[in-house]
Amino acid sequence: MGEATPAPEALRPLVVRTRTELRTALATAPRPIGLVPTMGALHEGHASLIRRARAESATVVATIFVNPRQFNETADFEEYARDEAADLTTAREAGADIVFIPTVEEVYPAGSQTTVRVGALTEALEGAARPGHFEGVTTVVAILLCLAGAERAYFGQKDAQQLLVVRRMALDLGIATEIVACPIVREPDGLAMSSRNVRLTPEQRAAAPVLRASLLAARAAYEAGERDGEALRTAIRGVLAAEPLAAPEYVSCADPATLRELARVDGPALLSLAVRFGSIRLIDNDPLP
Amino acid sequence: MGEATPAPEALRPLVVRTRTELRTALATAPRPIGLVPTMGALHEGHASLIRRARAESATVVATIFVNPRQFNETADFEEYARDEAADLTTAREAGADIVFIPTVEEVYPAGSQTTVRVGALTEALEGAARPGHFEGVTTVVAILLCLAGAERAYFGQKDAQQLLVVRRMALDLGIATEIVACPIVREPDGLAMSSRNVRLTPEQRAAAPVLRASLLAARAAYEAGERDGEALRTAIRGVLAAEPLAAPEYVSCADPATLRELARVDGPALLSLAVRFGSIRLIDNDPLP
Repeated sequence: MGEATPAPEALRPLVVRTRTELRTALATAPRPIGLVPTMGALHEGHASLIRRARAESATVVATIFVNPRQFNETADFEEYARDEAADLTTAREAGADIVFIPTVEEVYPAGSQTTVRVGALTEALEGAARPGHFEGVTTVVAILLCLAGAERAYFGQKDAQQLLVVRRMALDLGIATEIVACPIVREPDGLAMSSRNVRLTPEQRAAAPVLRASLLAARAAYEAGERDGEALRTAIRGVLAAEPLAAPEYVSCADPATLRELARVDGPALLSLAVRFGSIRLIDNDPLP
Repeated sequence: MGEATPAPEALRPLVVRTRTELRTALATAPRPIGLVPTMGALHEGHASLIRRARAESATVVATIFVNPRQFNETADFEEYARDEAADLTTAREAGADIVFIPTVEEVYPAGSQTTVRVGALTEALEGAARPGHFEGVTTVVAILLCLAGAERAYFGQKDAQQLLVVRRMALDLGIATEIVACPIVREPDGLAMSSRNVRLTPEQRAAAPVLRASLLAARAAYEAGERDGEALRTAIRGVLAAEPLAAPEYVSCADPATLRELARVDGPALLSLAVRFGSIRLIDNDPLP
């Protein structure tokens, strides 16, 4: 994968804050470049993406940008965790060479009015639950991919629909960056890592592994031979119903390529769900088989 | 501008028809790369873009793709001139090294569902007259810019709004290709070169220089001190009204950055118009001063 020649440890990561600084830093950077777009609040899931990029790239760029355009709820945007110093430590320890931390004005220059939209794939699940969310995601990811010009960009499987949508967008637009999917990283009790987990109350946090438990119940039914899509969704709902703090938003057993709900599971399927604990919204998923 | 090392004359231009062939050809091409996106039916206006690219680039790529998504009228799409052999001769003589002639399926792969949209700048003038036109333009140009990864791309000033919109899109998305504007090329009688000119009847062709004449009348008024926007538009309309074959679609005196109509011309302005001759729609423009 090329000879990695990272900067001396003491200088890493190089922090750049403007498009021009990023371009300048990357103009002479050894290739291939691996890009890890994040919204900060870095946890072990993000670290796993950076480590994967490190293993496959001569230069690793992480980006930290809390993208206002993808938040459909103002409170969620305002309460989203921000801790640059901690993020830089995490990024450095995981192997990032460069961290791009732009302002909103740097990502969306004055007069900015261009949006990137993906069609049918964004209509179900997260797209249905969060109006405007995916247009914000695809626009900012298109910008970051164009700015970085990386050989590969790394996204977590936890946002399964986002991964599909971003991969579709990159293919459709002819963006020469391979979109690499990385496995979900979980807490010991099974809760998928998320920057929103820290906002749960202790009671909510104790209840939150019910997402994973509900998916495992459906998987168990599948492994016992159940192939009826609605029966698998019902298996998930049944486990969630037993947890009074959990308010399910959607429960899905869908075609993993189109995200259309499946009546029968005759091939691969994506189990997924979104659940609210008070104002905090968590998601998880499990691909079958 | 780098040492140009074009292929031997007999081998030029190299014709590529797939994304992969284009990528392969460009992977080892000398830089900088100059891109000239066209819809074929190449005339002297296109040739001037290719010659400009040739003068500033080590590798010149022209693209020929009649983009169905930017035609708001089916008849206009179907009747749009197509002559690959003639286009290749023109492209070669003007200095193209590579000509990319993709199929619709190659530009928009199976399942394609991504669109790129520019906001306010696309709402007036051509955008108002041709619903969906600019979304088709910005989507295909984003794809061509991403596929080519050129240092510069060349567009004619004749499509003044398109030029503004494409430049805005490239800036907004962080596409690292400079958008270069090239002057309008005209027939000896003043008619702006257009692939649609050949579809005019002899009578319409004889009448068509009225577009340029009407702009020059407004310019003359401007140079005589007229600064009232409506008076300048009226000067254009007056000349057009004297030509019975010309059916004006819009007449504009607008801010050249925002394309908003001007009440007064206190700085630069863009005079522009669209006129139908039967089913053939022609446009022209003139920037003041």
